[in-house]
Amino acid sequence: MVSEIRRSILTALSSGGDQFLSGQELAEKAGCSRTAIWKHIEDLRQAGFVIESKRKKGYRLVSKGDSIKESDLLLGLKTETLGRTVHYFESVESTQKIAHQLAQEKAPEGTLVIAEEQVTGRGRMARQWHSPKGTGIWMSLLLRPLLPPQKAPQFTLIAAVAIVEAIKEVCELKVDIKWPNDLLIEGRKVTGILTELQADSEQIHSLIIGMGINVNQSREDFPSELSSIATSLAIEGNRQFSRSSLIQAIMKNLETYYAIYMEEGFVPIKAKWESYAVTIGRTITARTLNDEITGYASGITEEGVLLLVDQSGKTHKIYSADIE
Amino acid sequence: MVSEIRRSILTALSSGGDQFLSGQELAEKAGCSRTAIWKHIEDLRQAGFVIESKRKKGYRLVSKGDSIKESDLLLGLKTETLGRTVHYFESVESTQKIAHQLAQEKAPEGTLVIAEEQVTGRGRMARQWHSPKGTGIWMSLLLRPLLPPQKAPQFTLIAAVAIVEAIKEVCELKVDIKWPNDLLIEGRKVTGILTELQADSEQIHSLIIGMGINVNQSREDFPSELSSIATSLAIEGNRQFSRSSLIQAIMKNLETYYAIYMEEGFVPIKAKWESYAVTIGRTITARTLNDEITGYASGITEEGVLLLVDQSGKTHKIYSADIE
Repeated sequence: MVSEIRRSILTALSSGGDQFLSGQELAEKAGCSRTAIWKHIEDLRQAGFVIESKRKKGYRLVSKGDSIKESDLLLGLKTETLGRTVHYFESVESTQKIAHQLAQEKAPEGTLVIAEEQVTGRGRMARQWHSPKGTGIWMSLLLRPLLPPQKAPQFTLIAAVAIVEAIKEVCELKVDIKWPNDLLIEGRKVTGILTELQADSEQIHSLIIGMGINVNQSREDFPSELSSIATSLAIEGNRQFSRSSLIQAIMKNLETYYAIYMEEGFVPIKAKWESYAVTIGRTITARTLNDEITGYASGITEEGVLLLVDQSGKTHKIYSADIE
Repeated sequence: MVSEIRRSILTALSSGGDQFLSGQELAEKAGCSRTAIWKHIEDLRQAGFVIESKRKKGYRLVSKGDSIKESDLLLGLKTETLGRTVHYFESVESTQKIAHQLAQEKAPEGTLVIAEEQVTGRGRMARQWHSPKGTGIWMSLLLRPLLPPQKAPQFTLIAAVAIVEAIKEVCELKVDIKWPNDLLIEGRKVTGILTELQADSEQIHSLIIGMGINVNQSREDFPSELSSIATSLAIEGNRQFSRSSLIQAIMKNLETYYAIYMEEGFVPIKAKWESYAVTIGRTITARTLNDEITGYASGITEEGVLLLVDQSGKTHKIYSADIE
């Protein structure tokens, strides 16, 4: 955790770019003495930040590269709550599993679990999710919305909108949403979202949004069985991207849409979601557990359920399916 | 766990009542040798059953009283799945908590956690639930329905119907349902139900139905602050009841309605529920987290949500509230 003063110092250094900032300037921005600045800079160095200092010039933050450690994520994070508590790991079984444990241990709303690698990462229907070391964003965010469990599936859609817009901002790439939880570029999967919850009949206790984003993989990084159906932002954008910048943009967007949702309900989110969705306004086939329904996807409901109108004009509510 | 042969022996002894059954008779009913019978009887005695034996007469089961130990619950249980695996405790923090742990450890559908006493039993909204030693039924049942999480709240209503009918069968008492989760006799609370779930957006992983039933408490057993709002089956029926018989009837009813629900959907359950509900068809006040709405309770939806029509004719969907 970084204190308020240290956060001010980091923000100032970060916006200063390559320029040195004097101790006096930093002291004014952070609202403390120059002696305190020196002490806080030392603490920040202890916490892993690389800060260069030069006599008579002051301090400068050395570029942070593609690290997604707590210190790098907090530096420049523009949220109030989301991602403010970070649990970073080199390698985990699954970030969802750790987030569930933290939820039980009363971790606060906005807690983010992130790992360089997941050994047993999973997607919908307990399917395997390939999450190799250092190239993607594998993270789980804990929320505690005061809502009934019927509303939980909407958060997959809120997260989808937040991620689509973050990728547009940071990577300038156009991403499509495929119901319920996939983000695609040119038909290839770049992101999966898995929302899990613990609840009683009336009230969500904890909601955990798992996000897996293929960022800097090259074509060769994908196993052959995935190469035709998966892609990465780097492959599509022809360059590497900063994972921490992307995470920060996602946290900021999610916080904004979460607040809009809690104040105004699902309608504004639904409109955004439908504008990015390739599933809606087409004839598709939905393969459910017991059935296969072909029909016109007319939209989603207030509860995130897909509506399919079949040839006879009957509307089917699809809670769970694979879409073709 | 009791093997198939031992279950046959117990069923035979149980239906024999006070009569002795010869080893030969038991061997024929269980489909094994007389020597095997002797061995199984010894095993049953080890497992806690009190079985009397007399030379030339045979075996007889001694009355089991009000015990709710695994052996007593399994004896005479008429279900296929529900309550077939029992975890019995003298005293626990809460049976819900243990059931959640067992769910994580891949316990099978139908697993029942039951305790003589709960130290920190809780109801809706994390409210305290008074569950003193030996007088009530404090239990949690694990189900794993292949359903989306939106359907979970319906299980509180399914359980309510199953319990109302079990109390009618075993105790000959008329019980009313108060939305969402209380059972009342003459306006006093006799049972609370708390349905909790672990799920992802599309699929319930585990559903835990907690049931607290005041069975054999006397008026003096209730703390003074509860005496005007709570009652027990013994107080209302003027006699003590067998907890194990009641549990067996609840498991049987729940299994039946669960199967009906999975095959035919919520409609048949909804009709039963509404016929027992005092909340429906009246003008009531619902106090939600942020609001207080007075209106005519017109019914419940397919998803177990209460519908309130206010004076202006607007229909409100109530997911969570206290009702007056």
